[in-house]
Amino acid sequence: MIKFHEKDPYAPIQYSYEVEDILYRGKSKFQEIMVIRNPHFGKMLILDGVVQITERDEFFYHEMLAHVVLHAHPAPKKVIVIGGGDGGAVREVLKHKTVEKVYFIEIDEEVINVSRKFFPTVACDVDDPRVEIKCMDGAEFVRGQNADIDAVIVDSTDIVGFATSLFTKEFFTSIKNCLTESGFYVTLSESLHFHKDIVIEVQETMKGVFPLVDLYAAPIATYAGNWWTFSVGSKGLSPRELRQKFDMKTKYYSDEIHRQAFLPKGMYERLMQKKLEW
Amino acid sequence: MIKFHEKDPYAPIQYSYEVEDILYRGKSKFQEIMVIRNPHFGKMLILDGVVQITERDEFFYHEMLAHVVLHAHPAPKKVIVIGGGDGGAVREVLKHKTVEKVYFIEIDEEVINVSRKFFPTVACDVDDPRVEIKCMDGAEFVRGQNADIDAVIVDSTDIVGFATSLFTKEFFTSIKNCLTESGFYVTLSESLHFHKDIVIEVQETMKGVFPLVDLYAAPIATYAGNWWTFSVGSKGLSPRELRQKFDMKTKYYSDEIHRQAFLPKGMYERLMQKKLEW
Repeated sequence: MIKFHEKDPYAPIQYSYEVEDILYRGKSKFQEIMVIRNPHFGKMLILDGVVQITERDEFFYHEMLAHVVLHAHPAPKKVIVIGGGDGGAVREVLKHKTVEKVYFIEIDEEVINVSRKFFPTVACDVDDPRVEIKCMDGAEFVRGQNADIDAVIVDSTDIVGFATSLFTKEFFTSIKNCLTESGFYVTLSESLHFHKDIVIEVQETMKGVFPLVDLYAAPIATYAGNWWTFSVGSKGLSPRELRQKFDMKTKYYSDEIHRQAFLPKGMYERLMQKKLEW
Repeated sequence: MIKFHEKDPYAPIQYSYEVEDILYRGKSKFQEIMVIRNPHFGKMLILDGVVQITERDEFFYHEMLAHVVLHAHPAPKKVIVIGGGDGGAVREVLKHKTVEKVYFIEIDEEVINVSRKFFPTVACDVDDPRVEIKCMDGAEFVRGQNADIDAVIVDSTDIVGFATSLFTKEFFTSIKNCLTESGFYVTLSESLHFHKDIVIEVQETMKGVFPLVDLYAAPIATYAGNWWTFSVGSKGLSPRELRQKFDMKTKYYSDEIHRQAFLPKGMYERLMQKKLEW
């Protein structure tokens, strides 16, 4: 049996997957891109040795990344998606009928092309007329924006290498400056099991910029440590409240899951006081 | 680097752990027992090639196994723990001041002995005077009990091999017969990610016996599929409600976590109708 052993230097458990077939292997200007087929998960997209999505379970991550802030917003029209070259986040954003424009900013065009070819159910909406694709650095893109964006959604690789520019105070400030008063920013922020210190650091950096910062989580089997977190920043609106009726087809996200996904307040306080002992 | 590759035939991801040291390796009448040391998780107990507990994260599982039903009960006095030879469940049960008696029924005495020696922070309370250890089959033990038990807690290995006798209608009936009117039964029931069919099967079998059956989950990094479920049966009391004040030292469980751990009702319905698509 051929196995793919994930190369995640930050994970104390190594995950390995059976490989039925290697469908693609290439090197872009930014990273090594690989597509394999696994008997359980179907096709899997791997960047620099780390699993990004699988056909079978990608919706957990993409739904939870996009729908929480877009349901907390009263009526999102303009959205920026940074990263997420597979198109999964864009697909979920476009389920919101109020959305008129999605700026899809992916630094690595090759990821979009590989996803169009191998993940048609994920990349299905990247060529929708509401979507404007720009292959450039997300940090640079947000610096030039007016304050008319309703949501900025960051779907980057792990917080290492070239993705680290997406977790600085400068970047968070540029995002805040391009958001409307009811706008939201959301980003992945690693696992509460394995990367608690990173979660706290991202939250603290965001608190230096956004008036309101919060944290929610979802169980994602193929991300190291599962119990995956998402950090939200806003100018004051709480992301815990839904300001729209939940009325779309999803597999995991729902209004019930929305409310339940946020860290209980007591646990959140203990996290930020560094009192969670694990 | 020496690695331990977990041997879980039901998991589509293989988990591997760095081994700093092999502290114990033996064969009991029932299974192969191994204790290794890992740089992140500390000492790890492995039975028949499957990770049971780690020093670092065992409390997630043990707290969530014991405290949900014991807080839902108005005042638990007599408790049966079946399995859980490491002593972690017993330790958590004894945090409840109302508890007067714990029948600790572990089929494999060797697991208790190995845990006393290598996991003193887990097995710390197995020799408490309130605990009566019996090394025998749990199914046989409950058949002989009067109806004066407040909680039966099953902490078995995965639902394969000799543990399957703990998931039959006959066993569930014996448990129901030994519970008081406000008594609860709780058992692990595998992962919603990888073993959804097993979760449904356990729930359905329990529904054939208990008037009220429910399901809650917790994120456990070292169990395949994480998003680990616990199935609860009762004669009518809902386990979602706390009937006691939460007032003890825990690392993960709390009254907030108790309420949030249960599957949202809509998702639970879709699970049981086999409409969750993953």
